[in-house]
Amino acid sequence: MRASQFHLSTLKEAPSDAEVVSQKLMLRAGMIRKAAAGIYSYMPLGLRAIRKVETIIREEMDRAGAMELIMPLVQPAELWQETGRWDKMGAEMLRLKDRHERDFALQPTSEEVVTDIARQELKSYRQLPKNFYQIQIKFRDERRPRFGVMRGREFTMKDAYSFDRSAEAAGRSYDIMFATYKRIFDRLGLEYRAVAADTGAIGGDRSHEFQVIADTGEDAIVYCPGSDYAANIELAEALPLLARRAEATKPLEKTPTPGKASCADVAQLLGVPLATTVKSLVLATDDVDEKGNLAGVTVWLLLVRGDHALNEVKAGKLEGLKAGFRFATETEIVDHFGCKPGYLGPIGVSKPVRVIADRTVAHMADFICGANAEDFHYTGANWGRDLPEPDLVADLRDVVEGDPSPDGRGVLAIQRGIEVGHVFYLGTKYSKAMNATFLDEDGKPKHFEMGCYGIGVTRILGAAIEQNHDTRGIIWPGAIAPFEVVICPVGWSKSQAVRDEAQKLYDALTATGADVILDDRDERPGVMFADWELIGVPHRVTIGDRGLKEGMVEYQGRRDPEAARLPVGDVLGHVLDRLRRS
Amino acid sequence: MRASQFHLSTLKEAPSDAEVVSQKLMLRAGMIRKAAAGIYSYMPLGLRAIRKVETIIREEMDRAGAMELIMPLVQPAELWQETGRWDKMGAEMLRLKDRHERDFALQPTSEEVVTDIARQELKSYRQLPKNFYQIQIKFRDERRPRFGVMRGREFTMKDAYSFDRSAEAAGRSYDIMFATYKRIFDRLGLEYRAVAADTGAIGGDRSHEFQVIADTGEDAIVYCPGSDYAANIELAEALPLLARRAEATKPLEKTPTPGKASCADVAQLLGVPLATTVKSLVLATDDVDEKGNLAGVTVWLLLVRGDHALNEVKAGKLEGLKAGFRFATETEIVDHFGCKPGYLGPIGVSKPVRVIADRTVAHMADFICGANAEDFHYTGANWGRDLPEPDLVADLRDVVEGDPSPDGRGVLAIQRGIEVGHVFYLGTKYSKAMNATFLDEDGKPKHFEMGCYGIGVTRILGAAIEQNHDTRGIIWPGAIAPFEVVICPVGWSKSQAVRDEAQKLYDALTATGADVILDDRDERPGVMFADWELIGVPHRVTIGDRGLKEGMVEYQGRRDPEAARLPVGDVLGHVLDRLRRS
Repeated sequence: MRASQFHLSTLKEAPSDAEVVSQKLMLRAGMIRKAAAGIYSYMPLGLRAIRKVETIIREEMDRAGAMELIMPLVQPAELWQETGRWDKMGAEMLRLKDRHERDFALQPTSEEVVTDIARQELKSYRQLPKNFYQIQIKFRDERRPRFGVMRGREFTMKDAYSFDRSAEAAGRSYDIMFATYKRIFDRLGLEYRAVAADTGAIGGDRSHEFQVIADTGEDAIVYCPGSDYAANIELAEALPLLARRAEATKPLEKTPTPGKASCADVAQLLGVPLATTVKSLVLATDDVDEKGNLAGVTVWLLLVRGDHALNEVKAGKLEGLKAGFRFATETEIVDHFGCKPGYLGPIGVSKPVRVIADRTVAHMADFICGANAEDFHYTGANWGRDLPEPDLVADLRDVVEGDPSPDGRGVLAIQRGIEVGHVFYLGTKYSKAMNATFLDEDGKPKHFEMGCYGIGVTRILGAAIEQNHDTRGIIWPGAIAPFEVVICPVGWSKSQAVRDEAQKLYDALTATGADVILDDRDERPGVMFADWELIGVPHRVTIGDRGLKEGMVEYQGRRDPEAARLPVGDVLGHVLDRLRRS
Repeated sequence: MRASQFHLSTLKEAPSDAEVVSQKLMLRAGMIRKAAAGIYSYMPLGLRAIRKVETIIREEMDRAGAMELIMPLVQPAELWQETGRWDKMGAEMLRLKDRHERDFALQPTSEEVVTDIARQELKSYRQLPKNFYQIQIKFRDERRPRFGVMRGREFTMKDAYSFDRSAEAAGRSYDIMFATYKRIFDRLGLEYRAVAADTGAIGGDRSHEFQVIADTGEDAIVYCPGSDYAANIELAEALPLLARRAEATKPLEKTPTPGKASCADVAQLLGVPLATTVKSLVLATDDVDEKGNLAGVTVWLLLVRGDHALNEVKAGKLEGLKAGFRFATETEIVDHFGCKPGYLGPIGVSKPVRVIADRTVAHMADFICGANAEDFHYTGANWGRDLPEPDLVADLRDVVEGDPSPDGRGVLAIQRGIEVGHVFYLGTKYSKAMNATFLDEDGKPKHFEMGCYGIGVTRILGAAIEQNHDTRGIIWPGAIAPFEVVICPVGWSKSQAVRDEAQKLYDALTATGADVILDDRDERPGVMFADWELIGVPHRVTIGDRGLKEGMVEYQGRRDPEAARLPVGDVLGHVLDRLRRS
C-alpha cells in the first residue's frame, strides 16, 4: 500500500471530550471518528487493526472446532421474554418497535437467539458438543458512554455459546475455550492475565476474565507472583490476617474523638495504627410476609478492619443478604444505633442488629470502634468481654497487596486490568428457561449444559493502546498493527535512487507476506516520523539520498531508543528478523 | 472440513411460509434460520457462502482503490435532519430513541454519515478522488418482508461512496465502479446484465442497475440482442411504432359497447386488433397558490395504445407532472368527463383537461376510444378532424418485446431480473445539503461531487439460487459455493481402504487450495447425495469398496446428467480440471 492511495488523517490535538489515552490516540491517529456518544465510525486505519484481531480470533475459534454463524442484531422480544430478560435487562438493552409496533431489542448479547437455534437444530446427543460463535455488532445503551472504544455503545464482540450433554462435558468445552483464549491473547501480543471471576447465581468455579494489564484499567486484578493464583478483586479470597485472637490487655474506654468520623482520623488522633480500628457498615434487608408485603426491616452491621474495604459481592453471597440488600437509611441507622453515621459500632446498640465480622476483625483484640455516641469511640474493645461474639464471621473485604495468597504460596499483588474476554459456564439457566432439549442416548430429553465466551473485539484495540504507548503515540504489537512496516523515503519526488531503493525494499518485504506501507507523500522526515510514531507502526526504514551515497539506510523499531544505520544490503534481513521476533 | 465436525442440518420440507424457491432451498439446506419476519440467522453453511461473496467484493473494491471502513448502524437523527431525509424517508427507516430520548435511525444506507466524514476528513483537492466503502448490516423495515434474503429487513450490503472535485472526475469514479462491478459479478459466476436506470431528480445518464437474470425476478429488463443496449423498464425508451400518422378513412361513430370497459373487451366485441384502441388514464395535480394553499386541481388525460401500459416514471418526468401527481378521484373524473371510468376518452370532455398522447397514439388514425358516455366508445376517431391535437406528445409507455431498439440496431427483448447492484451518480445533492466542501486548487471551497454504489451481499445468495437450481436443490456457481467439492465415502466406518482413499483425495485437493468437505457421517449414499445435491456443492466424488476393487471411483458435477466412472489415479486431475473450468 502506498500512503498516497490510503486515507491517512492524523490530528495534532485530540478533541477536547476525549478522556483516556487510547481514545485520544485513536482519534489523533485517524483510526476512529465519533458519530455520536459511544458510537464511532472505524476509519480505514482502525478497520485494518480490527480485521487483524478478528482474523486471529476466527482462526483460533475454528481451530477449536467452533462454528461461525451470524445472529441478527435486531432480535424479537418474544425470545427475551422467554427467559425473563426482557424485563430484567435494564436500560442498557435498547428496545425498539417496528412499523407494526412489534417489540425488538438490539442485541447486547445472544443467549436467547442461540438457545432458540439450538432447540431447533440440535435434536440428538450425537450432534453434541457444539459451539456456535459470531463476530458481530452489539449495542449496549450505556448511561455514560466513555473512553472511546473501551466503553462504547455500538461495538464488535465475538460471542460463542457451547452446548453439551452434561456438566462434565460442558467443563471440557469450557477448558477448550479457556485454552483457545490463551492462544488468542498470546497471538495478539498483549500482556494479560486470566483471572477467576464470580459466577453469581450459577455457582461453581467456571468463570474467568481475560484482563489486559494496564495502569489505567478499571478492574483490580489480584494475583500471587509465586503461583498461578489470579482472581478479580470481587472474587479473590481474603484470609484472616491474624491467626488467632489475642488476649485482652486493655480496658474498654469511651474515648472522646470530636469530629473524627473516619477510622483514619481516629487512628491519627489517638496515635495508633489504622489496623487497630474497626469500620462499621450498616446494611438493610426488607422482610416480606407470605403475601409479599413489606413486614419489616432487618439491619445488618458489617465490620471490617479500618484499613480494609467492604466487598459487596462477597456480602451479597451471605445467607440473609443474598436475596438483595441495600445500605441502611440514616433514619434506620439512628433508630437502631441511637447515633448518626460516623461513630457507629457493635457495642451498645439500641435495637437488635445482625453483626457480621470479617475474618480478621473476628480475631482482633483491644480494638477501636465507634461508641454509638457522637464524637466518641471505644478503645480497648474485646470480643466476649465487651460485646457478644458476632452472629457470623465471614470473608467480607477486598484483599489488599501483601495479603497471604489463598493457595498458601506467597503474598498477593494487585494490578489494574481491562477486561477484554470472559469465559463463563452457564449450566442449564437458559436451556431450562427456553425448554431447549436434546434426546440423550437413553432416549430421554435433557436440557443442554451451556457455556458462553465473549471477546470485546473493538475494546481490544483500546486495551492494546492503554498498555502500549508513549508520549509520541501508539506502539502496536506486531500482530495487530494496521501496518507492520513503514518505509519513509526522504525526497521522494527528487531522487530516483531513493524511489528505486524504497520500491525495491517494499517489493521484497511484501513478497514475504509482510504488511508494508510506503510513504510516498513527499513529506519532510519530521512530518512522516510524527505521523507513523503516532499511528504506531512497529518498524520503520528511512531511505535518503545522503545515506544511500554511503550505502546506508536507517532502521528504527518503534520502541528502540534510537535509529540504527545499516548497510542497504542488510536492511531486508534485519527487518525480517525483527518481524520474526516481534 | 469433515462433515461430522461441521453443522449440517437439512430439512425434508421447507417451512410453509416460504414463498420462493431460493428461500425454500436456503431453509431446507440449513443456510438460514428465521428469527422474525425478514430477519434471519445465517447458519455456518450460509455464512461460508456470504464470506466468499464478501471476499470477492472486497478484493475488487480494494483493487479499484476504494478504502474500506465501517460506519455505525445506529446513526444520530441530526445527520439525517441535515438532508431532510429524517422526514422524507418513510416507515422503512426504523427510528428509535436511546435512554436519553435522543433520536436515532438504524442505517438503511449511509450517505449522511459518509458525507459527514468527508467534510471532516477531506479538506483539500489533493485528497481527491476518494471512495469509501463498507460491508455492513443494513436495516429496512419493509412493510411486507418476504422471499427470504431477497427482501429481508436486516441484510448485509456493500455500500460505497465516491468524492470528487468535479462532475467530470465523478464520471471517472463512476466508470471505475461500473467496471469493478462487472468484474465482481463476472467472478461471482452469475448471469447478469448492467442496465441503465432512471436517475430521478439528479438527471444525467449515470445510473445503472446490475440485474441477475432469473425468471422469478421482480424487475423487467429491456435489452437489444443485436447491440449492447440494456435498460430497466422504467427507463427504456419506447419509440413510436408508427412512423407517421395515416389519413383518416373512417367516420367517427359512437358505437355501443355495453359492459365493455376495457380496451381488450372492446376490441374483442368489435372484432378488431387491440392495437387499434386507445386507453385513457386520468391523473391529477394539485395547484397551490403563492401562500401554499390548495388553489385548484388540474386534470390530465394520458393516452396510450390499448395494448400498452402507462409508465409512471416517464410520466413523472413531464412538465406539470414532475412536481408530483396522483390518479384522479372518481369524483374528479365524473366532474371533468361527465362519465365514470371505463368509457373515458379525449373527445367531448365536459371540462378542460390537459391531454398527453403517447408517441404511438399521436400517430394513430381511425382509432377507438371511450365516448365519455357509459357503454359507448367512439370508432374511427382521428386527430385534427374529431379532436384537437394533444397538448403534448411524449414517451408515456413501457416498452414491449419486439419494439424497435432506441439505438436502431434491432428489436427489444425483455427478461426478468433481480437487482443485486446499483451504481449511481449523486452530484452535489448531499454535499450541498450538508455543506460538505473541500478547498480546490484555486483556494476556494467547492462541494464534493458524489456517487454511491451498492451491492446486496445477502441478496446475491438468493439471486444466485433463483438463477441456479433444479428439483433436487441448489446449484452453486463455484466461486460462492459453501464447499467446492464433497467427497462421499461409501461405508466409512467399515472400510479402511475407503477411508484411506477418501482422506488421500481430501488432502491432495485441500493442498491445492480447494474448499473440500469429507462426508464422514457414515450415512448411506442416498442420504449423502440428497444432502449435497440440496446444498448444491458443485463437484462430488464417491468412493466405495466395490469401485475401489476395480480401481475406480465416481465423479459427478452438480449439473452433469450422470456420474462418470474414473480410475482412482485420474480423479484428482479430473476434479482440478473441472474446478478450473467452473
